[in-house]
Amino acid sequence: MNRRKNTTPNKEDFCSALREELLQRVETDYEEFKRTHTFKFPTWLYGSPRGKLFKLEVEDCPRFGDRAFVEFDSARTAFLSIDMQVDFCGPKGYVDVMGYDLGLTSAAIKPTIYVLETLRNGTDIKVIHTREGHLPDLSDAPYNKILRSKIIGDGVGIGNIPEGGLGRLLIRGEKNWDIIDDLYPIPGEYVVDKAGKGAFSQSNLPLILKNLAITHLVITGITTDVCVHTVMREANDYGYWCTLLKDGTGATDYGNYQAAIKQIKMQGGVFGWVSDSNKFVNAVKSAFNRSEIVD
Amino acid sequence: MNRRKNTTPNKEDFCSALREELLQRVETDYEEFKRTHTFKFPTWLYGSPRGKLFKLEVEDCPRFGDRAFVEFDSARTAFLSIDMQVDFCGPKGYVDVMGYDLGLTSAAIKPTIYVLETLRNGTDIKVIHTREGHLPDLSDAPYNKILRSKIIGDGVGIGNIPEGGLGRLLIRGEKNWDIIDDLYPIPGEYVVDKAGKGAFSQSNLPLILKNLAITHLVITGITTDVCVHTVMREANDYGYWCTLLKDGTGATDYGNYQAAIKQIKMQGGVFGWVSDSNKFVNAVKSAFNRSEIVD
Amino acid sequence: MNRRKNTTPNKEDFCSALREELLQRVETDYEEFKRTHTFKFPTWLYGSPRGKLFKLEVEDCPRFGDRAFVEFDSARTAFLSIDMQVDFCGPKGYVDVMGYDLGLTSAAIKPTIYVLETLRNGTDIKVIHTREGHLPDLSDAPYNKILRSKIIGDGVGIGNIPEGGLGRLLIRGEKNWDIIDDLYPIPGEYVVDKAGKGAFSQSNLPLILKNLAITHLVITGITTDVCVHTVMREANDYGYWCTLLKDGTGATDYGNYQAAIKQIKMQGGVFGWVSDSNKFVNAVKSAFNRSEIVD
Amino acid sequence: MNRRKNTTPNKEDFCSALREELLQRVETDYEEFKRTHTFKFPTWLYGSPRGKLFKLEVEDCPRFGDRAFVEFDSARTAFLSIDMQVDFCGPKGYVDVMGYDLGLTSAAIKPTIYVLETLRNGTDIKVIHTREGHLPDLSDAPYNKILRSKIIGDGVGIGNIPEGGLGRLLIRGEKNWDIIDDLYPIPGEYVVDKAGKGAFSQSNLPLILKNLAITHLVITGITTDVCVHTVMREANDYGYWCTLLKDGTGATDYGNYQAAIKQIKMQGGVFGWVSDSNKFVNAVKSAFNRSEIVD
Repeated sequence: MNRRKNTTPNKEDFCSALREELLQRVETDYEEFKRTHTFKFPTWLYGSPRGKLFKLEVEDCPRFGDRAFVEFDSARTAFLSIDMQVDFCGPKGYVDVMGYDLGLTSAAIKPTIYVLETLRNGTDIKVIHTREGHLPDLSDAPYNKILRSKIIGDGVGIGNIPEGGLGRLLIRGEKNWDIIDDLYPIPGEYVVDKAGKGAFSQSNLPLILKNLAITHLVITGITTDVCVHTVMREANDYGYWCTLLKDGTGATDYGNYQAAIKQIKMQGGVFGWVSDSNKFVNAVKSAFNRSEIVD
Repeated sequence: MNRRKNTTPNKEDFCSALREELLQRVETDYEEFKRTHTFKFPTWLYGSPRGKLFKLEVEDCPRFGDRAFVEFDSARTAFLSIDMQVDFCGPKGYVDVMGYDLGLTSAAIKPTIYVLETLRNGTDIKVIHTREGHLPDLSDAPYNKILRSKIIGDGVGIGNIPEGGLGRLLIRGEKNWDIIDDLYPIPGEYVVDKAGKGAFSQSNLPLILKNLAITHLVITGITTDVCVHTVMREANDYGYWCTLLKDGTGATDYGNYQAAIKQIKMQGGVFGWVSDSNKFVNAVKSAFNRSEIVD
Repeated sequence: MNRRKNTTPNKEDFCSALREELLQRVETDYEEFKRTHTFKFPTWLYGSPRGKLFKLEVEDCPRFGDRAFVEFDSARTAFLSIDMQVDFCGPKGYVDVMGYDLGLTSAAIKPTIYVLETLRNGTDIKVIHTREGHLPDLSDAPYNKILRSKIIGDGVGIGNIPEGGLGRLLIRGEKNWDIIDDLYPIPGEYVVDKAGKGAFSQSNLPLILKNLAITHLVITGITTDVCVHTVMREANDYGYWCTLLKDGTGATDYGNYQAAIKQIKMQGGVFGWVSDSNKFVNAVKSAFNRSEIVD
Repeated sequence: MNRRKNTTPNKEDFCSALREELLQRVETDYEEFKRTHTFKFPTWLYGSPRGKLFKLEVEDCPRFGDRAFVEFDSARTAFLSIDMQVDFCGPKGYVDVMGYDLGLTSAAIKPTIYVLETLRNGTDIKVIHTREGHLPDLSDAPYNKILRSKIIGDGVGIGNIPEGGLGRLLIRGEKNWDIIDDLYPIPGEYVVDKAGKGAFSQSNLPLILKNLAITHLVITGITTDVCVHTVMREANDYGYWCTLLKDGTGATDYGNYQAAIKQIKMQGGVFGWVSDSNKFVNAVKSAFNRSEIVD
């Protein structure tokens, strides 16, 4: 053996081969994007589609006022409905007890029903519901989270039962913690329990996405600026291709909702893309050869 | 042995002992808060202070218009300066190339200098700088991140060298990627390289915080709505007591900056607290018996 | 402002200040160890003890044939009982179905009972039980794990009900999945459900340890070379001070058990330390002033 | 809207649809395995192959004495060479300083060279090298790890320079920390720096595997019972299909090496499979139509 190392990992010359190959790919896809305004499903990376390909129009991409398309493989797409629980959008739940206007968070319900009805009608898009909540012994709740909730609730916080309430706030197994009837999961759908605003270090969501070989996410739920944004940020950091349906999400403050939408669109889509329920439903129906396309 | 299990974990009756003990603690601290408006350093949880205790005034807590105080143990506090890199706030960096107004992100520089000067003057508060950037072979960069940056940059994205630029955008080791001179780390400070917007699944930050036994974080950096918020969300989910200094952070859009600040304050502090550099400097100086307190 | 960066993070000269300070601490503790053979509870790092200090004798440390002591703060110690489920050490469970000798795994039961009785008698050491198992929809089970279990079980694997069995193998909620009666948790103890062999990316264990401000772990459970070792390796990588009680753990193969114990002791304790139930019980009783010390 | 929830997530009836669909798939693959003794590349999950399919013989699977085959898609396979650094298998490195026999760890070198030569000759199998090491400021090293290394090294541990040594032990950038010349990476290969024994919470390895859409891992490196096993355990928990090449790995103790190999094979392959370098090279050459097949 007469080997000599002739280079150093992580230095410019050593890394240039891998980088230039990847940048060449990016260059090609960039040229394609200029022609088609489409982020194509990358078969070079994920292999040929397993389900049906469909193109979803997204707004303000790459710049505000522009429109573009994202291509999905239905079999590798998961639809996330985040934290549509009584505690966040129903009467006598946590948000209600804190005194926020339920109208803002509950606005997301109807568009999400519309999407679910479409997905449940013969598609292979996976549906995943999440629920934020803590174990009944509160062991997975950070102390400062419990204390702050106690204070903002004037003595009624996580783990307490509000006067006239349905159960302990944000505790797994309580009625107020469960998903609202209108969006309740049906058999064949996944349910993820998470202890935090995010879901990647706070639940088994990353395992489930990996087990299902998911590459693209379509996201709805509440609240836009808290749990929805945190999950989308984490997923985006891990390389998932994320699109938020803006009418399928709501916040406790309308300005925060609007800003949360805008924040996603910065830098050409710093956390992914923004679309809406109608566009998504039409894209899915088109792929699955349904006649009843609406606008 | 004649044991019988007489209960079931995670069910109400089983869990009530742990929960009631914790809720009793919360009740006590809530009563204390009502008297003192202070989130005391929890010695029952972390033991007696190792450094100096100091109280920092935070704004709009628990409700907008209110003020409160958070108590820190200096030896268990880390000050985070997030991504103050040329790429995000300097000329010819990434943000500049995308065409955003540098004035908004660079506004964070002066207040952060002010804080650093104080911390470097004999305190035991740990200083941690982060840098977002990718390996020169781009192996740790998700493909959609690279592609979107290419598109928004009109052909010049992550890994490319802009015309007249300092080096490859967002690549470790390049001049544009490094921290700006005015905020450059000094020996005795920590530097964390992260591949994503967040830092808890994208860097060794969680290891470092754990090795230093940190409990409380004071956060500055850019951009407010992207990396700063993502790191703060992750840290908050893990139970760190987080405070953002609002004048030590900036965004590429002023409305997004304002909303990002407000989003933290919702629900009594859903991601922690908001203060500013003057308040923090005065709190620290007061604890370390400095005379030169300013306002 | 006339600042110049005069150094570079992560390079030798820049990092020497922090390193030398830490190595000086290590030097001091090394000299102390030579005198006392004790890994003292590091108050410089974690603050003064919140509970009672006690010293546990550990074997073959630093070298085979040596003995040393590890000092614990009872209030920051968690006792882990890993996966003592019917599926792993009871009749008609998963290990039984695969045809392994139950005697090897069930040997861990009696010593663990002995420890639990001591801990439950007025100590502040936290007790955490873990259970490996999958959601009833199998969404958190990797496909190759399910398939391999099917093959080794001659057609009866994870999710199947063996002939004459108690329920679906390794599925949450089934009788075979639950903890055996003799070691069943009591109110006041924590229960963690994990989807994998490990628990740090597969459960909320890291959150719970962090919420409880735990620094030291004492570990028992089954099987030694699989789940126990995986959890110990993860915890050790995160900086927890880990000790295995060797008679409180068992494997499906005695040689693998012996090797797993030895592997921990290599390199001066590459994954932590090894002790036994008698030594631990005596150390705890001594700290809590009990008379009934046995050997 | 007149919806009623008629079921409950995570309960038996709700979950049966997803479970039965998955178990049906398992049943089919189990029947296929009985006929072919092959773990086929699961195109139903990952899509059609992007590279070349090849079958690798693995030993003692499902039971000791049996043999089986695992099918790989070359484009989604990564070959891991773990920690082949001077510190672990070279003179004057960390293992040498601790007094272990270098012959045991260095036995892995020649078989790994043989594999690398094959992979570098026109295949699309990704090659990833890892290095264990700490930042020069030691910030990412747990204190107990440093202290134990100091004690076992009789005063010379992590961060120290041994007498006549090449540099600071286990510190990034030092000569002793780098990969040995014989196995030095070449351009086109990936290098991952990790702070722990494992790599999934201690490095960007999970990001890189995800960015490359890797599904199967072939593992070599040192030491078998420490870093190699920890990485394999983590990867297995995440659902990667893992195979260790037993002659491409070594330990500081031969009994520990043998046990580490055996531990993988328990329960039908509890952490994956075991093969060797000859079998792997032949499988790869066969797929890439090379004539020079050896045995």
